[in-house]
Amino acid sequence: MNETPAPELHVSQWFNSPEDLRLADLRGRVVMIEAFQMLCPGCVAHGLPQAQAVHQAFPQDKISVIGLHCVFEHHAAMTPVSLEAFLYEYRIAFPVGVDLTGNDALPQTMAAYEMQGTPTLILIDKQGRRRAQYFGQIPDLRLGHDIGLLLSELPGKESFEAPVTKEETRCDEEGCRLE
Amino acid sequence: MNETPAPELHVSQWFNSPEDLRLADLRGRVVMIEAFQMLCPGCVAHGLPQAQAVHQAFPQDKISVIGLHCVFEHHAAMTPVSLEAFLYEYRIAFPVGVDLTGNDALPQTMAAYEMQGTPTLILIDKQGRRRAQYFGQIPDLRLGHDIGLLLSELPGKESFEAPVTKEETRCDEEGCRLE
Amino acid sequence: MNETPAPELHVSQWFNSPEDLRLADLRGRVVMIEAFQMLCPGCVAHGLPQAQAVHQAFPQDKISVIGLHCVFEHHAAMTPVSLEAFLYEYRIAFPVGVDLTGNDALPQTMAAYEMQGTPTLILIDKQGRRRAQYFGQIPDLRLGHDIGLLLSELPGKESFEAPVTKEETRCDEEGCRLE
Amino acid sequence: MNETPAPELHVSQWFNSPEDLRLADLRGRVVMIEAFQMLCPGCVAHGLPQAQAVHQAFPQDKISVIGLHCVFEHHAAMTPVSLEAFLYEYRIAFPVGVDLTGNDALPQTMAAYEMQGTPTLILIDKQGRRRAQYFGQIPDLRLGHDIGLLLSELPGKESFEAPVTKEETRCDEEGCRLE
Repeated sequence: MNETPAPELHVSQWFNSPEDLRLADLRGRVVMIEAFQMLCPGCVAHGLPQAQAVHQAFPQDKISVIGLHCVFEHHAAMTPVSLEAFLYEYRIAFPVGVDLTGNDALPQTMAAYEMQGTPTLILIDKQGRRRAQYFGQIPDLRLGHDIGLLLSELPGKESFEAPVTKEETRCDEEGCRLE
Repeated sequence: MNETPAPELHVSQWFNSPEDLRLADLRGRVVMIEAFQMLCPGCVAHGLPQAQAVHQAFPQDKISVIGLHCVFEHHAAMTPVSLEAFLYEYRIAFPVGVDLTGNDALPQTMAAYEMQGTPTLILIDKQGRRRAQYFGQIPDLRLGHDIGLLLSELPGKESFEAPVTKEETRCDEEGCRLE
Repeated sequence: MNETPAPELHVSQWFNSPEDLRLADLRGRVVMIEAFQMLCPGCVAHGLPQAQAVHQAFPQDKISVIGLHCVFEHHAAMTPVSLEAFLYEYRIAFPVGVDLTGNDALPQTMAAYEMQGTPTLILIDKQGRRRAQYFGQIPDLRLGHDIGLLLSELPGKESFEAPVTKEETRCDEEGCRLE
Repeated sequence: MNETPAPELHVSQWFNSPEDLRLADLRGRVVMIEAFQMLCPGCVAHGLPQAQAVHQAFPQDKISVIGLHCVFEHHAAMTPVSLEAFLYEYRIAFPVGVDLTGNDALPQTMAAYEMQGTPTLILIDKQGRRRAQYFGQIPDLRLGHDIGLLLSELPGKESFEAPVTKEETRCDEEGCRLE
């Protein structure tokens, strides 16, 4: 078990949230981060609908679902103006932050979490520690299991550590990968 | 929390199991019972594939998936001979018991659990207590959650009690209901 | 173009039809035969729902959809008693004939058409000639195309001849094949 | 049967085509126009995959599939720069034209065809006449039927005229409608 808190979010702009969200303020809740790009087919077909389902199925004071727009390609095509229309048309109801541009193509939060591409799903426990990070498609059954486990966890009784998958890039049905 | 153990299975014949299975012998594991009829469309399209997925996704020494053939209609059409071919063609890999015929149309285990029809999914905790009973289709996300929670549970730390749904009958895409 | 009429149906019993159906009586209509087995997963998941969709989407005086129960394995498991319950539960609305038992395991119509297994979909034109025979899953787009073409055909203006696929056996998601 | 040729396309920019496409140059082929917006959920989930399937299933010298990007809302979010990245990520292989901006929000080709929103699917026969126009989702079986019929048609033997549906607007799973 890594005792270090998960890296804080670096966000330039929030949608669907009246205020900036910080992981540090969400202690006591499970946090699910859905990192996506609006033009990533795997995110649109699987990742975001799954995040919507989690947002609707579980009490929001127990689990916070947060979208993170991690643009690492086609930057001119996925500006906040386009993202806003996308979120409206797809009726995304949970808070979505725009990952802060870094020194290179890779945005800062994406770099801090060493994500391999989009979609990436990250689970953070009630004490603020990263407990799972999945790249690509993950079955609802497995995700539900992880959530059930994290929700029921008592401090000092942690019981699972999901593997953090590492892979390469280009968009396919599974998502967009870094090269 | 009901402290009474879940009713024992009443089975006339087992498939995919070298020996008779008794809930009493499965203490220490979570048990998932998938009650179905081989000619119930909702069981074939949703219930049984979901049970197969659970059987494959989780360690079998932690969770036992058991099929229960609860025939309450078309008895002549769903004999053990037909069931055996069905299990073979659909490649059902987990143990399946034939619910024992009762005094009326309703088989005995089905009656003891007061099931409302098929498919019915029942979750039993490590201590042998019935903790959830769902009639009809239940999302993978919810089922995964319940399983995660039951698997991680420590004695005396139980935390959920799912509603036991009660409904009426006839087969539709959701399943076959008792009238 | 084969000018010989398609082999006549050999049926021991009809369901969903007040009278015996003969291809010879259906001249002037396109006929679609859905050959299936009630315990064939590919038939239940794809073939029969597709046949239902055709039955509902097109005028029945222009195209006749006929189910044919071709049992070539597990004979004791798929008797007419079981079939009748199956048709009722799956709400099959079109006429279904039981293919007549032959001298060996293979029923007579199935043998006459040299079918390779189930599901097999056969298209017969307005003049009673077999024009296409597909084994396994066929996309709706392709089937719709064939139907549109056969429906619009004028005598002497026939324009397509679909390949008759030949393959081997055992049930998988695609269907049940002869060995 | 309307003998007037279908309105010509008004396009400001083409993707996936070395040259400008004009309906007048496509006489002798069936033409299928898929009018869409890149941020319309119904277009992304149903309309465009269906157009891709038609493009792949039928010979391209018999039927030409043409995409038409008809932006009537969120104009700043769906510029040609964003569209180009979208087409790349979704691997759209057929030619796509950007419908020419008109005097109001409605682009010119969309106005000429009196489309009700996106997705809209238009079928044009070998002689250049509009024969069908569907707004929203249309089953593959029906679309395949129409294509089969148009492909087999001989001049003077036309046989169907699909209803041109008229409806109102806002994006839902079915598509984006004009108000």
